Amino acid sequence: MNLVIDIGNTRIKYAVFENGRIIHDHSFESGLFLSKIKELFEKYPQINNAILSSVGKLDRKERDVVALFCKVHVLTNNSKVPFKNSYATPQTLGVDRLALAAAAYHHNPRGNTLVIDAGTCITYEMVNNFGEYIGGAISPGVKMRYNAMHNQTAGLPLLNPTELLDFIGNSTESCIHSGVINGVTQEVDGVIDQYQSRFQDLTVILTGGDSHFFAKRLKNTIFANSKFLLEGLNCLLEYNTN
Amino acid sequence: MNLVIDIGNTRIKYAVFENGRIIHDHSFESGLFLSKIKELFEKYPQINNAILSSVGKLDRKERDVVALFCKVHVLTNNSKVPFKNSYATPQTLGVDRLALAAAAYHHNPRGNTLVIDAGTCITYEMVNNFGEYIGGAISPGVKMRYNAMHNQTAGLPLLNPTELLDFIGNSTESCIHSGVINGVTQEVDGVIDQYQSRFQDLTVILTGGDSHFFAKRLKNTIFANSKFLLEGLNCLLEYNTN
Repeated sequence: MNLVIDIGNTRIKYAVFENGRIIHDHSFESGLFLSKIKELFEKYPQINNAILSSVGKLDRKERDVVALFCKVHVLTNNSKVPFKNSYATPQTLGVDRLALAAAAYHHNPRGNTLVIDAGTCITYEMVNNFGEYIGGAISPGVKMRYNAMHNQTAGLPLLNPTELLDFIGNSTESCIHSGVINGVTQEVDGVIDQYQSRFQDLTVILTGGDSHFFAKRLKNTIFANSKFLLEGLNCLLEYNTN
Repeated sequence: MNLVIDIGNTRIKYAVFENGRIIHDHSFESGLFLSKIKELFEKYPQINNAILSSVGKLDRKERDVVALFCKVHVLTNNSKVPFKNSYATPQTLGVDRLALAAAAYHHNPRGNTLVIDAGTCITYEMVNNFGEYIGGAISPGVKMRYNAMHNQTAGLPLLNPTELLDFIGNSTESCIHSGVINGVTQEVDGVIDQYQSRFQDLTVILTGGDSHFFAKRLKNTIFANSKFLLEGLNCLLEYNTN
């Protein structure tokens, strides 16, 4: 049984895998790490391997906590990957993006796959039909756009994401919602069009906690999979322990 | 002779108009206001009317400085406008957006006009062929997107906007440039498409200091006019003094 832990910019997510499938998953605030991990191993003492992935600098303490209970693989740019990594600067590739590429390759090893992850940032990862990860893009996430317009201007309010009524706003609030929600939708749709014109039979996978704000508005066909990054981490754990 | 002054989020821009045409324009940092205005009136003593527009709260001092030299109209939500304002909350409409709508109406009084202003934020303003301003959207600007990804994540560097080589980045830097520059391009192109499918014979005007980062990459036809907001302020000054 495997444990995968994803320490993101805002929250910590984890999932327990048995035979390649998630049997339990959850997310929590970073302050609660020790108690949450202890609780988890009390419930699932069969976990014998864990992988830890962090977008920031990984606190050694977190590794040590998990290592009390099972073997731990800390995901780094030196971890083994099942695909060919053609990123020009692999040492600066975020490990979250490495996990998404692994999941894309695992899901569709002989196809062209674009993974779009809408979290703190919106990341695009392209794995081609030669099993080669070639890169993508990093763009501001939905909540980041709302925050930025409030923080970096003199007069715009801070709003929470909401369902959009129309792409033409007629109040400050509806204009900001259109600029973020409709803006992200147009951006993602346009980028998918670009990849589709370069790569044949492209599979597009949309994941990440903020994808529901715009997924339904996209004109392009996508596969929604909210646990895709966790699945990628499980692939990498399997690949690095076997 | 008219003087129009636009106090933006980052810089102050001004232009001197004679018979509806700009004969001089310039921009400077806000700290230099008094000396710059004094210098300007020494050079153009014929200026007899000025309009002041500010996206934030206007400092009374700035009005008083200009009033030493000529009559001053401070642009507010109560200023008279030549178009029908159908914004649901006209009291919260930024005066910079009011000026862009005025410029759109002045430029194309019986046509459908979309103005896209790429500054601190990217604003969209729609004036329809009934001479009616109906609203638009506010989305994060180019530099704001770079700042936000640096400020709101643990590990992304702060970059300056640059010419884009390809929409697929293969390093952290090229991925961020793609996410911002290609992202904005796709967003703006997609939004233009949406307006074009709703409004016949749409004229699209692109303005603002950051439009050059993506203007050439747009698939849609646009008219570039870097002084459009200043022209709108001049229209509003004429309209409010005659």
